[in-house]
Amino acid sequence: MLGLNETTVSIKNIIKASKNVYKYLSPTPLRHYKILSDMLGCELWLKHENHNPTCAFKVRGGINFVAQLTDEQKQAGLYTASTGNHGQSIAYASQHFNAKAIIYVPKNANSGKVAAMQAYGAQVVHFGDNFDQCRAAALQAANKNNGMFIGPTDEALINGVGSYGLEIINDLPDVDLIIVPVGAGSGICGTAIVAKTINPKIKIIGVQSAQAPAQQLSWRNGELIEAQNTTIAEGVATGVPFINTQKIMRKNVDEFLLVDDKDIIKSTEILIKNSHNLIEEASAATFAAAQQIKSQLQGKKVVLVISGGNISMNNLGQLFGVQPRKES
Amino acid sequence: MLGLNETTVSIKNIIKASKNVYKYLSPTPLRHYKILSDMLGCELWLKHENHNPTCAFKVRGGINFVAQLTDEQKQAGLYTASTGNHGQSIAYASQHFNAKAIIYVPKNANSGKVAAMQAYGAQVVHFGDNFDQCRAAALQAANKNNGMFIGPTDEALINGVGSYGLEIINDLPDVDLIIVPVGAGSGICGTAIVAKTINPKIKIIGVQSAQAPAQQLSWRNGELIEAQNTTIAEGVATGVPFINTQKIMRKNVDEFLLVDDKDIIKSTEILIKNSHNLIEEASAATFAAAQQIKSQLQGKKVVLVISGGNISMNNLGQLFGVQPRKES
Repeated sequence: MLGLNETTVSIKNIIKASKNVYKYLSPTPLRHYKILSDMLGCELWLKHENHNPTCAFKVRGGINFVAQLTDEQKQAGLYTASTGNHGQSIAYASQHFNAKAIIYVPKNANSGKVAAMQAYGAQVVHFGDNFDQCRAAALQAANKNNGMFIGPTDEALINGVGSYGLEIINDLPDVDLIIVPVGAGSGICGTAIVAKTINPKIKIIGVQSAQAPAQQLSWRNGELIEAQNTTIAEGVATGVPFINTQKIMRKNVDEFLLVDDKDIIKSTEILIKNSHNLIEEASAATFAAAQQIKSQLQGKKVVLVISGGNISMNNLGQLFGVQPRKES
Repeated sequence: MLGLNETTVSIKNIIKASKNVYKYLSPTPLRHYKILSDMLGCELWLKHENHNPTCAFKVRGGINFVAQLTDEQKQAGLYTASTGNHGQSIAYASQHFNAKAIIYVPKNANSGKVAAMQAYGAQVVHFGDNFDQCRAAALQAANKNNGMFIGPTDEALINGVGSYGLEIINDLPDVDLIIVPVGAGSGICGTAIVAKTINPKIKIIGVQSAQAPAQQLSWRNGELIEAQNTTIAEGVATGVPFINTQKIMRKNVDEFLLVDDKDIIKSTEILIKNSHNLIEEASAATFAAAQQIKSQLQGKKVVLVISGGNISMNNLGQLFGVQPRKES
């Protein structure tokens, strides 16, 4: 089923996209953390995508996508669906380039992310229970209103976010292994294409929550498989896999792990405590994955992609044992 | 008492220091936040010094200081005292330049900051109840062991941290007002010298906790006044003022506010929630100060210096109503 169709995702196009990206954004730091390294027995580096505007890697893709649109396309409206970070990215880029953004989010979306989208001037529509329902509604609205639908794995997005892969290899050319959280898959696809083109020996490992394993199951089985989607980590909450990122992952990803939400939560606390950065759960899934394969990491140079920092105040409170409260 | 003695702090020397700084560090972002702007009725920008290595502005000074030492000086040992961020800065720079760092911290120091200093290879000595006792002990140890004592307001530190002032004016030349948390005073002195040299109309406002007002009282009265030092915001916890930063502040700072710890705590939660960055209490004192003078800020371009992100997990938990626990 997953044949090798044409794709525009390539290191050449990622380098081209990076020219767009660096007009508006700066590279993010790759930092070494001794305490975390000691915990895992490896040389551990965090790629701080949480330092981007919108506090997530997706903004690189949003900038690259909206930068290339015509004025007519921008005014017709950009419709998309998001659990949060992709929506912030499109909202941020739309504000920057004077485009009109309409973003469908699940009814229970992270209110901090929603507030950020609105602050960037986007129209936010609360719809349905999950990303997949929002996606269908956004697509329908785009068609009805002659707007443009932006899927979360559009290749201009993947080429844009791939710029952080270039930065990782530039800062740490000897990296042995990169662990990337997988939501729709744009981040890992960009990273994997860059890493495998430059040095095929770099291992690329994806991670999802065991409570939302659709992408992992699809990757492992070579066919598109839907699955439960109940994880608390909205950045990796994907119940329906994406064919284009699956194709790239099947070719370029070495391993794809599942970690339990309870280990993601523990890892979130560990990373916040030891990096002194606000880090969201999807990003912390990488640390849980590293713990799972600790024996393979000994002495290696390992990068965890900290895809975002947009943890909700409710979930942050829960790290300290505070029960969920109504968000204000 | 506060006469106008010679100082090496100048925009020329800050520019020179910035050459050292940018060999090892990148500029930090200055970001606009609409939600926070709306709360204050101004155009609010946060200067994200928490994005530095060590998650605090002080590292700029540490790099500039240690970069200029001889090998002999580095091996003789660098002795200093710190409540956390200055110590991390000296530890980080010492590791970078192969120097030996010995850092005195209060017995109740923020354990996350202490762990970070040790991770950078520094020897940490827990001593006494507050910064001022540690300072005396570090000075004595330096003399006894023929090492070098580094005070927190050494002018090479001030010139180094002044580089963030250059970045603020570079990114937002029309800034009307900059609010800076004051601990020892290196940050506000560098910022004020830069801003006042380029445009004397830029208002520079210092802020301390009402629970540790020594620097504010000294500035207001033109003489060195010690005061109680019981604030929870260790980044502004100074009980004994510093003569050299007082001199610069008297000449270059327009206003110096006190804010209550309880407002600092509220502001910490507001800033973390709306910026999605981990922000420590001293930094949040700037937002509490902005709220206090809200009527003066209407329509203005205002920068809050987010000096650091090293909030302890205990204090972060307390934002959610969790009682202090023993840190592990």
